[in-house]
Amino acid sequence: MLTEPERKHHEPFMQRAIELAKRGIGSTHPNPRVGAVVVGKSGEVVGEGWHAYPGGLHAEAMAIEKAGENAQGATLYVTLEPCAAHGRTPACTDAIRSSGITDVIYASSDPNPKMAGGAKVLVAARINVIGGFMKDEADKLNLPFFHYMKTGRPYVTAKAAISLDGKLATHSQHSQWISGPESRLHAQAIRAQVDAIVVGAGTLHFDNPSLTVRDVEVKGSVPLRVVLCFETPHFSQESKLLSDDAPTRFYVRSFNEHTEKWREAGVQIEKLNSLDAILKHLAQDGYLHLLLEGGGCLHASFFDAHFTSEVVLYQAPILIGGRDAVSLWNGTGVETLDHALRLADIKYRKLGNDVMIRGNVIYPD
Amino acid sequence: MLTEPERKHHEPFMQRAIELAKRGIGSTHPNPRVGAVVVGKSGEVVGEGWHAYPGGLHAEAMAIEKAGENAQGATLYVTLEPCAAHGRTPACTDAIRSSGITDVIYASSDPNPKMAGGAKVLVAARINVIGGFMKDEADKLNLPFFHYMKTGRPYVTAKAAISLDGKLATHSQHSQWISGPESRLHAQAIRAQVDAIVVGAGTLHFDNPSLTVRDVEVKGSVPLRVVLCFETPHFSQESKLLSDDAPTRFYVRSFNEHTEKWREAGVQIEKLNSLDAILKHLAQDGYLHLLLEGGGCLHASFFDAHFTSEVVLYQAPILIGGRDAVSLWNGTGVETLDHALRLADIKYRKLGNDVMIRGNVIYPD
Repeated sequence: MLTEPERKHHEPFMQRAIELAKRGIGSTHPNPRVGAVVVGKSGEVVGEGWHAYPGGLHAEAMAIEKAGENAQGATLYVTLEPCAAHGRTPACTDAIRSSGITDVIYASSDPNPKMAGGAKVLVAARINVIGGFMKDEADKLNLPFFHYMKTGRPYVTAKAAISLDGKLATHSQHSQWISGPESRLHAQAIRAQVDAIVVGAGTLHFDNPSLTVRDVEVKGSVPLRVVLCFETPHFSQESKLLSDDAPTRFYVRSFNEHTEKWREAGVQIEKLNSLDAILKHLAQDGYLHLLLEGGGCLHASFFDAHFTSEVVLYQAPILIGGRDAVSLWNGTGVETLDHALRLADIKYRKLGNDVMIRGNVIYPD
Repeated sequence: MLTEPERKHHEPFMQRAIELAKRGIGSTHPNPRVGAVVVGKSGEVVGEGWHAYPGGLHAEAMAIEKAGENAQGATLYVTLEPCAAHGRTPACTDAIRSSGITDVIYASSDPNPKMAGGAKVLVAARINVIGGFMKDEADKLNLPFFHYMKTGRPYVTAKAAISLDGKLATHSQHSQWISGPESRLHAQAIRAQVDAIVVGAGTLHFDNPSLTVRDVEVKGSVPLRVVLCFETPHFSQESKLLSDDAPTRFYVRSFNEHTEKWREAGVQIEKLNSLDAILKHLAQDGYLHLLLEGGGCLHASFFDAHFTSEVVLYQAPILIGGRDAVSLWNGTGVETLDHALRLADIKYRKLGNDVMIRGNVIYPD
């Protein structure tokens, strides 16, 4: 157990390591985001590092390299338990041992069984190790990665522009635009951070979306465009998904005469029979963070299956009404309120005339 | 036109008059809420007044009475144009003229044709008059009163506890409780300020509500309990509306064998054929501010007819889902987004886990 003064001493250094880890947002995929700081005997920061891209230096290795001889007797702060396995890069535990570092403080534990066990190796090498320090904050850096390790499925963020009365579109499917420009820009920033953008056949049909990232910078690969359909949708030369801006993949339950036409136009088409299988397929291809953009039926399928991890709503100050209007969750819904889904760690933020509501979905037991 | 220094000089006094007017909330009904401040030649407040109850002193008269001889050469700040007519109390313009006051600054104009014209009378008596000062803020004191003067109908506040996806109840009509205790207490405070609480037949049937004010003080009369139904609902001895806590009135389109039973139990039953006729009937009886508490069909009727002036939503951080769940606005809704209803002057306030959203409804042209 750390004393309060010790905790206060360590906090700014781990905070800095977390900030460094964020430099990898959008580019480390499918690796986790990690940041590291080496603090020398004098109490000064002597090395900083972060994981920038797959195959690049691990954060610890970069920080230790920067520290050089100043690593002697130093303390390493790292947001994730150092790896003990030689993968594309050498094991970080080896780099730590040979650097002269005497103390290691890490936040998240590595949920990847191939990588875990680093703390044990360090302890065996007589290095002082404290694990789990500022874990909650550091875990947030790698929610998709940890979620995948736990479930085999991607982390799903459901996004919708919604009226105060819970509608995504009018009864005539009119939905452009419910939210204002500030919300739409914010949504683009979220698109830039995910691995794939997912919509249903209805959205493809009614909106002809481009599903690309606009007006914000994408650091790593552009997100895959995914459409989930019962059968291959009608081929259309007008489809904005035929652009070269991003790869596109359809998941269908059955092929038809349109399948080849889409394929010839460059669209991947996979035949899979369940949402679970589709999600695992995407995860295995390294798509660990999906942005689900609707419509109501697709959101319903994900809520019903408990596959949505997080919700981001752009709530506009309008009322649309209508029994036949598109609701966020158009399925059966829950029977009684104790079965309602709850949002935890909820954040509200004013964006122009809208309010962004973001929270983690807690499913009833 | 006032100069900026003049405006700055007058503001605190009118602000004080507005605060005084608020002392009448819940008790001036069906009269407007009015506050007044007399500021003597020395620049000090020498008299304060407010309208407390129908038949009681008008705010100006009370303030002038308090000021006594100090009213000589003084300035009167009053939230509403002083009345020029002798009603239950003498005309305020007479009191002002005989007091020695030389300057009158008022905020709202009196929309009551019987009472208006006070400013003209004062000007004719060589008193300096400035009208419309801080009008927007003062108008808010008397929204129901002004709305009634303009439309002949009461000001309607629609209130609902709602999920993030716009549901008032699950598909099995389960609705207790969507919102938390802080929201429910706040809703009681709103009940205490209105003249009548209105629900539909479905709410009567499913919830057996008491529609009384609990846990907060009611200053004037307790609000009338109103149920709108197609025909007289089934009589039930178990109905909480049979309590003596408040008067109860049903509006029906047709009578049946239950009508007499309810009447014998003390419930007023009126037969009227349209929502417009019902609202005008309530207004003529002095019920100028209605709180509409649902359910979805009743809210829909009011939205469709453009009769809802204000919306108060207690938004809980939950998702209920379901095509057959009860939506806030269960009717046809709007066809395209340019016909959506917009909330203006919208306020968001955290109440426990919920967010209260309150705004004025702007209908499309």
